[in-house]
Amino acid sequence: MASREKELDALRIQIRALTSDILEKVHERMALAEQIGEIKNKLGIDVKDEKVEHEIRLMVIKQAERVGMSKEFALRLLNILLSESEAVQEKNRLQKDKVTRQTHLGIFQKAKQLEALGKHIVHLEVGEPDYDAPEQAGIALAESFKQKKYHYTDTRGLPPLRAAIAKKWKVHEDEVIVTPGGRFAVFAAITSIVRPGEELISIEPAWPAYRECADFVGARCKVLRTTLDRDWTPDPKELESLITTGTKMIALNYPNNPTGKILDKKTMERIVGLARDHGLYLLSDEVYSDYSFKPFESVNLYGYDRSIIVSSFSKTYAMTGFRVGYAIANSESVKKMAKVQAVGVTSVAEPIQHAALAALDADPSENVALMKKRLHFLSDRIRKMPLRFVEPEGAMYVYPQLPDGIGDDIHLVESLLDRGVAIAPGSGFGESYNQFVRISACRTEEEMAEGLAILESEVRKRQ
Amino acid sequence: MASREKELDALRIQIRALTSDILEKVHERMALAEQIGEIKNKLGIDVKDEKVEHEIRLMVIKQAERVGMSKEFALRLLNILLSESEAVQEKNRLQKDKVTRQTHLGIFQKAKQLEALGKHIVHLEVGEPDYDAPEQAGIALAESFKQKKYHYTDTRGLPPLRAAIAKKWKVHEDEVIVTPGGRFAVFAAITSIVRPGEELISIEPAWPAYRECADFVGARCKVLRTTLDRDWTPDPKELESLITTGTKMIALNYPNNPTGKILDKKTMERIVGLARDHGLYLLSDEVYSDYSFKPFESVNLYGYDRSIIVSSFSKTYAMTGFRVGYAIANSESVKKMAKVQAVGVTSVAEPIQHAALAALDADPSENVALMKKRLHFLSDRIRKMPLRFVEPEGAMYVYPQLPDGIGDDIHLVESLLDRGVAIAPGSGFGESYNQFVRISACRTEEEMAEGLAILESEVRKRQ
Repeated sequence: MASREKELDALRIQIRALTSDILEKVHERMALAEQIGEIKNKLGIDVKDEKVEHEIRLMVIKQAERVGMSKEFALRLLNILLSESEAVQEKNRLQKDKVTRQTHLGIFQKAKQLEALGKHIVHLEVGEPDYDAPEQAGIALAESFKQKKYHYTDTRGLPPLRAAIAKKWKVHEDEVIVTPGGRFAVFAAITSIVRPGEELISIEPAWPAYRECADFVGARCKVLRTTLDRDWTPDPKELESLITTGTKMIALNYPNNPTGKILDKKTMERIVGLARDHGLYLLSDEVYSDYSFKPFESVNLYGYDRSIIVSSFSKTYAMTGFRVGYAIANSESVKKMAKVQAVGVTSVAEPIQHAALAALDADPSENVALMKKRLHFLSDRIRKMPLRFVEPEGAMYVYPQLPDGIGDDIHLVESLLDRGVAIAPGSGFGESYNQFVRISACRTEEEMAEGLAILESEVRKRQ
Repeated sequence: MASREKELDALRIQIRALTSDILEKVHERMALAEQIGEIKNKLGIDVKDEKVEHEIRLMVIKQAERVGMSKEFALRLLNILLSESEAVQEKNRLQKDKVTRQTHLGIFQKAKQLEALGKHIVHLEVGEPDYDAPEQAGIALAESFKQKKYHYTDTRGLPPLRAAIAKKWKVHEDEVIVTPGGRFAVFAAITSIVRPGEELISIEPAWPAYRECADFVGARCKVLRTTLDRDWTPDPKELESLITTGTKMIALNYPNNPTGKILDKKTMERIVGLARDHGLYLLSDEVYSDYSFKPFESVNLYGYDRSIIVSSFSKTYAMTGFRVGYAIANSESVKKMAKVQAVGVTSVAEPIQHAALAALDADPSENVALMKKRLHFLSDRIRKMPLRFVEPEGAMYVYPQLPDGIGDDIHLVESLLDRGVAIAPGSGFGESYNQFVRISACRTEEEMAEGLAILESEVRKRQ
């Protein structure tokens, strides 16, 4: 055997021994984590301790720098150790999270099943307007077929559609990507930027997609809670305290689903400032921006390079089932998102893109006025019930708190479904909001009145 | 300070020390890996050594079992160490892979840009038939708008569409999921089943999507090479030798893109048998099954529970730009894929699903006959050039080998693009196939003749 090959064999023996040592130490570490978990359990404190994690992360970064090891790799390794430790610590806790969380979509599917069995259901659960999509979208759809426009397009979208969106947003075409729904824009943004073990901060209550996408890539979703008592305004100081060396992105959603909150300028400026100071991406889901009943400024106007704005044709133009939305971001971020789009879906269906282009010419002001009127109607009715809420400043929902002692959201929602009205459980937007429900203003006043009468009777019955 | 809290602090100090030890050992391991890399470099051998990896994997499994550690976690940790070692070892090699791989889609985008500048291009690069989508698909598209059928649907697809697909495939509706293109079916299958660090085996040359999806989740794509000399038939023994404890899925694609190969029954049986023996998922991408010019049997007929069949409306019905396909799998796999679909896209656009449903009634036999005729034409012409190939048994392409001494695929493809014909570089289907090109039969004989004349002249010029 040549000497080099002997050397290779010797090195391989060493590498196996070291691998075994590493595993041994990791195992010891897990045993310690388990002990810590037991004590925390007895003390009644949370498994997660941001401060301790932050310190250990700093230690690892320093050590990596000292020995000349890739910092990114060291942190990835640490993240795996941390999440396994957490899993081990959670093991002996009550399995409260194992109960599948019920979201508005789950209720929607259940309601559909009941309808298939002949039951009459008032739909106040989903965010799907009942009014019509613009006529020109339908014409464009039919026309695209006649003109044989049903081929692969540029991954980022049809050039004329991107040009029209760029014009509307006053950005360059390279800063636009058309996606199958705002949801895929969120998906592509999160999965292309946040790596496994890294962190995304979501401000709850929130549309569950941000957390779902973080879970999907194996990233960690940290939560900044907001409360009804503080008018759903996030506290920038608290937000800052959540930022660690592992944080990569903050997800914003204003006008907010489910609360209808719109942030004041000062709070928005502080959040953008925090993102800038820490070099974080700012994902701003603005799909409800047209439904703003007080002044709303897009994050795009703050001139922050790492912002990614998500928008959609679904809500503004009542085109939910067309599945078309887009993102506005710097051209580098757009390229990253386009890679995800190329891997996952190639491009958005061409006829759908022509329909979207045509829809941009439609005037959504009637839709907006109607939604405003409905939200007033909804708020007025709910004000007469024993439910606390903040009047929505935008979006399409009211998110009231249930009175004490009537049980949690899921039980209420299920009883209501039996009685013929579907509403969304509050905990679908954050697990600590199980005393809330979300009611959509996407149906006529007559339908809403019918559904709300059942809701009121059920709430009073339980009091 | 209470004694429990003191205890907690002591444990935390220990855990930090252990974390530091682990990092130290990992760093030592990387240094060894670097040395091994240098020796391998001098010996001229590959960085990857399946056998050595397999042994170390077995060692780790045994150790995890001995100390009572989660086997899955231990393997995940090992995979991270292995890929980082590989990265360190590759560091000093020639950066050959850093050159962005050019795929057929890249050439398509380049060709589109040249066309926008007024250049005439013959498109023999993409797999997009030039004939028309079925008339009934267009009628259904327009009709769906008129009937206001543009809403969210069940994540797995419209019930009547799923029922029609289930009937066609003789499976239960719960075994069907409608996706935005066959591509998303592949994406959902791989990302929902193969975890980071686990392995997928792809039989190359292959459509790059399987590898791209594996890369996307941080899984490893192992390659079973097939050769022109062996008629592109995969060797089941070689396939078996690639299977390790980390292997989760085998991706098949017959009729094959790019070679046109259809597997004989015996080979197929052996592959299904291997999947069964090792409990692997069998992803069978059958989007070209209608373009089979010798008997083809779907993997679905082999009755293997862990098979996932991917199909699409794109090729059969010339509906590429509709972006609609589907998967057939057991209901558990469908549920897993539906989760990915819910996170990424909610559902396929409703008008598109109605168009797909209508298309199922169309008769694709004219399309199939035309493609067969074109492939004959293409083969006849190529046979007269100094290009070796196996006559395609299905699909829509010819995949010939370039003669020695005329340079690699990329250079040829780029010269051809300058001369007005776009074809796909062979290396887009596997990096070792840079002496091949893929030529599509998706254009008229006149167009193909025009493009082939340029190809022939360029090849002869270079000889």
